[in-house]
Amino acid sequence: MGGRGKDDYDVSAPVDARQAITDLLFSYAWHFDRNEPELVAALFTEDASLDYGPEWDPIRGRAAVVPRISQGLEEIFEATSHHISNVMITLESDDEASGRAYVYAWHRYRDGSPDGHLWAQYHSRFLRTAEGWRISELILRAAGTQDFHRATMHPIGRRD
Amino acid sequence: MGGRGKDDYDVSAPVDARQAITDLLFSYAWHFDRNEPELVAALFTEDASLDYGPEWDPIRGRAAVVPRISQGLEEIFEATSHHISNVMITLESDDEASGRAYVYAWHRYRDGSPDGHLWAQYHSRFLRTAEGWRISELILRAAGTQDFHRATMHPIGRRD
Amino acid sequence: MGGRGKDDYDVSAPVDARQAITDLLFSYAWHFDRNEPELVAALFTEDASLDYGPEWDPIRGRAAVVPRISQGLEEIFEATSHHISNVMITLESDDEASGRAYVYAWHRYRDGSPDGHLWAQYHSRFLRTAEGWRISELILRAAGTQDFHRATMHPIGRRD
Repeated sequence: MGGRGKDDYDVSAPVDARQAITDLLFSYAWHFDRNEPELVAALFTEDASLDYGPEWDPIRGRAAVVPRISQGLEEIFEATSHHISNVMITLESDDEASGRAYVYAWHRYRDGSPDGHLWAQYHSRFLRTAEGWRISELILRAAGTQDFHRATMHPIGRRD
Repeated sequence: MGGRGKDDYDVSAPVDARQAITDLLFSYAWHFDRNEPELVAALFTEDASLDYGPEWDPIRGRAAVVPRISQGLEEIFEATSHHISNVMITLESDDEASGRAYVYAWHRYRDGSPDGHLWAQYHSRFLRTAEGWRISELILRAAGTQDFHRATMHPIGRRD
Repeated sequence: MGGRGKDDYDVSAPVDARQAITDLLFSYAWHFDRNEPELVAALFTEDASLDYGPEWDPIRGRAAVVPRISQGLEEIFEATSHHISNVMITLESDDEASGRAYVYAWHRYRDGSPDGHLWAQYHSRFLRTAEGWRISELILRAAGTQDFHRATMHPIGRRD
């Protein structure tokens, strides 16, 4: 990635952008696991799209995030832990990026069902807004689940 | 990392600090899982505090680390694996930082008990000492456990 | 992160190398989990060595990767998910690096056996080739397994 000229004030910009975008994903897990839906919502752009799977209509717009996720956070889960790894970010321009990350998510249910496990990926897009980097699209794709509260998920696209 | 001009010694410092601090957490897992308590201890400041939960008094000072953790490493665990992710570091000054990271820890017991699982977070503080960055405070907070050898843990602070 | 001098075009080079090497590991997981053995193979040097454990002869050379891993990907696994964390990279020169990383790998079997779990480490070496950074050596070392399809693994080297 050499060949930079002398005016390389941009050099660390990709590092900063990667850091900011990675922090968005980690903040998503953090606030979700702490049951802070309004702080989850604040990580998204105003017109963001969130697609958690074929059983749900996608969530459209930041304002729709809280009503859609707060019920699960309050009523279904006693505890969750979203372990995000394999973060792969592609900077497409100064203001746009796409990302793929892995998540291993553990869920404890209020109703005493066996703990649910999810081995999955977040496929996402990011925009730099006046507020800073935000998530503009999040699609959850699952490699597999065990004792999970949802029966069908978007696939990761494994070749048959 | 050669070839730097004389005025740029600050440029990579934040990146280097993040890297050094992240390496401390990964080295903690590495040496713990290899049953090397004295190398775990060396990652901490002389007066560090380690709080693994309400069932134990916090460990006070680097010199107390080895006697406190070596028994478990020797007698309780046949094997462990600490998978650290979601590393979020805040640089507070050139010499101080705080961090939050997730850990999914797997434990195999010498007595044949079912494997123990821990979904948790490390809440920590770091200081840059004459020896380099070291951990000055580590608090383990658990989202949940399964078949774990300890009954109560510090909570992550999930909103009720 | 301002205050840069004009000669600092080397500053981010180590960051770029770490990023490129980390991406190799994440791409390995990505293509493995998508059942794309030829894209897994492309991450390795022409004369790379892959050692998955004492039950297999090591794979020698990029050309041998596809025939050796494609059978498992096709016939044994219905799905897999390789969650890579604790990535520790040592840059040994401009063109050589070594790395250690953790992996928690989940496996669903075609024959309906219980899901296999692997808590392990990749010990690896990397070379910068004309094509960019590639993996020249990969050794899988396991802390432990549960319901896994292989009985013996290289150990992580835990002290007795």
